[in-house]
Amino acid sequence: MTAPLHEVNPAGAGRTLPDTQQGMRRRNLARVMHTVSAEGPLSRAAVASRIGLTRAAVSTLVDELIRSGLLEELGPERPGRVGRPGSALAVSAHGPAGIGAEVGVDHLAVCAVDLRGEVRARAVRHAANRGRAAEPVLAELRELVDQVVAEAGREGLWPAGLAVAVPGLVARDARTVVRAPNLDWRDADLGDLLATDVPLTVGNEANFGALAELWLGDDTPPDFLHVSAEIGIGAAVVVDGSLLHGTRGFAGELGHVPVQPEGPACPCGGRGCLEQYAGEEAVLRAAGLEPGEDRVGLLAERAAAGDEDVRRALREAGTALGIALTGAVNLLDPRTVVLGGALAALAPWLLPSLESELDRRTAGPACPVSVSRLGPEGPLLGAAHAVVRAVLDDPASVAERA
Amino acid sequence: MTAPLHEVNPAGAGRTLPDTQQGMRRRNLARVMHTVSAEGPLSRAAVASRIGLTRAAVSTLVDELIRSGLLEELGPERPGRVGRPGSALAVSAHGPAGIGAEVGVDHLAVCAVDLRGEVRARAVRHAANRGRAAEPVLAELRELVDQVVAEAGREGLWPAGLAVAVPGLVARDARTVVRAPNLDWRDADLGDLLATDVPLTVGNEANFGALAELWLGDDTPPDFLHVSAEIGIGAAVVVDGSLLHGTRGFAGELGHVPVQPEGPACPCGGRGCLEQYAGEEAVLRAAGLEPGEDRVGLLAERAAAGDEDVRRALREAGTALGIALTGAVNLLDPRTVVLGGALAALAPWLLPSLESELDRRTAGPACPVSVSRLGPEGPLLGAAHAVVRAVLDDPASVAERA
Repeated sequence: MTAPLHEVNPAGAGRTLPDTQQGMRRRNLARVMHTVSAEGPLSRAAVASRIGLTRAAVSTLVDELIRSGLLEELGPERPGRVGRPGSALAVSAHGPAGIGAEVGVDHLAVCAVDLRGEVRARAVRHAANRGRAAEPVLAELRELVDQVVAEAGREGLWPAGLAVAVPGLVARDARTVVRAPNLDWRDADLGDLLATDVPLTVGNEANFGALAELWLGDDTPPDFLHVSAEIGIGAAVVVDGSLLHGTRGFAGELGHVPVQPEGPACPCGGRGCLEQYAGEEAVLRAAGLEPGEDRVGLLAERAAAGDEDVRRALREAGTALGIALTGAVNLLDPRTVVLGGALAALAPWLLPSLESELDRRTAGPACPVSVSRLGPEGPLLGAAHAVVRAVLDDPASVAERA
Repeated sequence: MTAPLHEVNPAGAGRTLPDTQQGMRRRNLARVMHTVSAEGPLSRAAVASRIGLTRAAVSTLVDELIRSGLLEELGPERPGRVGRPGSALAVSAHGPAGIGAEVGVDHLAVCAVDLRGEVRARAVRHAANRGRAAEPVLAELRELVDQVVAEAGREGLWPAGLAVAVPGLVARDARTVVRAPNLDWRDADLGDLLATDVPLTVGNEANFGALAELWLGDDTPPDFLHVSAEIGIGAAVVVDGSLLHGTRGFAGELGHVPVQPEGPACPCGGRGCLEQYAGEEAVLRAAGLEPGEDRVGLLAERAAAGDEDVRRALREAGTALGIALTGAVNLLDPRTVVLGGALAALAPWLLPSLESELDRRTAGPACPVSVSRLGPEGPLLGAAHAVVRAVLDDPASVAERA
């Protein structure tokens, strides 16, 4: 999701373009930004020693980053340190910000995150988006984006990019929603429909949720499988700290892995897919409940109150998840499986059967399963942070626009 | 598989080390080698224009590569071209070679491949390795390696590396065979056991088979799922032209994806795994045949002769493969599925049911399935070429040893 945001990023440039002084400068600017972001405040000397360049080379890079508003000087370091005091550098709390947006079935949300990772502005609106066409939904989203950008602007922030999380399949152009089964969207080009001047990236909500887990989760490893749910079941595969997109951008469709090859027909064309056992509607049906507004809240409430039908339905969903995850774990060998989105709230009742199925089917130590702390916040935060990471990965691209 | 061969490779250096003149030179040497390898013979000027560096910069790099025996000059270009005639450059047919080796259940094989990709020496020996311990097998393999290295040496080639393909799980250190169910190997450190001076890489045979398909196949795309079989069923996932290894190096275990969750128990600890339906032994059993020496040959011969029991057994194996592959395709979104190894010989009888299952279960256009032209040669060639590619990827590492 992050890569298409800027045409040039350090890893891509290193592989495909000739290796020039200009490319080297660009990659070293990124190294300085990442170092200060991860470990700052730091003096110029400390940055130099951490990235293995001379103090003089680092000073030139730092000056450029200060001029374009990406770094700021906090003034002389506090006394008590050895040597000549240097001025501590920090990532700027003003300047570029990442705008994240989320189109949910029941809501729209937008937030602005600064380069330090702080949420600085936010707007949420309930909206009945199920079966609704792209134009009116995106017109409403655009209003929220403008509102958040204006609010962030009052704090000295300007939008470096806008990333939109949607519950559907997104093409590799990171603009076109090919299909969003629970909205009435098909081949919707969000670049045209949102018509914003801010550089745009569109991505699947499960993918942004996984990136949020990678960047903001507690000790999340760089290789994991993230499983989430809103109406459907989505998954995202993170390998060596990057999303696996697939040829068309459709990787991670765990919801349509066959669990019982001769099970009930699925709208996808298959039979016995995971979604037929562990999708929200299947679970509500199995529990004898009607689909309403806050479906996950209802299931969690009833399960907590001891409703045996709901608990059984969730137990069976956990078993189906365990079977589908066994296949995924055998294919991908991830370090962990993380349950996010709506599944996080239902984890207490899903996990026992899910883990027992995964354990008994796996030779050797089973893959550990953990529950996301971010829950339903993941996709929105992941989207905003994807923009912030793209700035840290290629500060030069933003400096030129500052 | 390729990455661990040398500690420094261009992509890795770009990401983790400071960007220095030295690193830049190293990466540019690789660009020159890859360009001449892919498009040569080429003049210095042609190389310069293709990689976007000055003619002078390219000449310095070329001289270094000629001095260390990686490139050679073919003499003046033939007349009829515009401009001053330049001397054409080609990848050297002498100098470093990749040594590939394969440990099969019924055979051992070793070959030497030069930097141009030609097989220059080769040795194969039948061996009853099933249930045999690592020490005697590797002592025998070492003899074959020495024999092939000596033969290659007589043609002016020296071993830049040795890559060994094994039918088992290999740890990420690319030395240790953690488990090889059809040999009697467990936690065997091939670095110790082979005791060779040549830099060693050990990999799973399905992974090397997939790399062979990537590098030598007809128009193989950079994203595909490679499915192969000897005794077990192995798969390898190639993403953006690289193998997906998994956290422990165990990715690609398609054979233990659940196909029928309540099916027969599998030695892996699961139930109804793909191997219980499409593994060699399961197919022989279903066809009413005894496991003998050339099991795949027997199945192919009987099926070709119209044996209805064998054809039915292969049809059912194809169905099970189709179900497991539906899950894999949904998770990974590869461009194609390639059947390799023993499966290639059986494809005529597996494909119809496999493709029909995959088609009917997939929404939208199904993932195309093709059959490898390399067949059982894949793992051995993939291993040798992995060494050759590592030389092209970081010529400096070899030049230092030349």
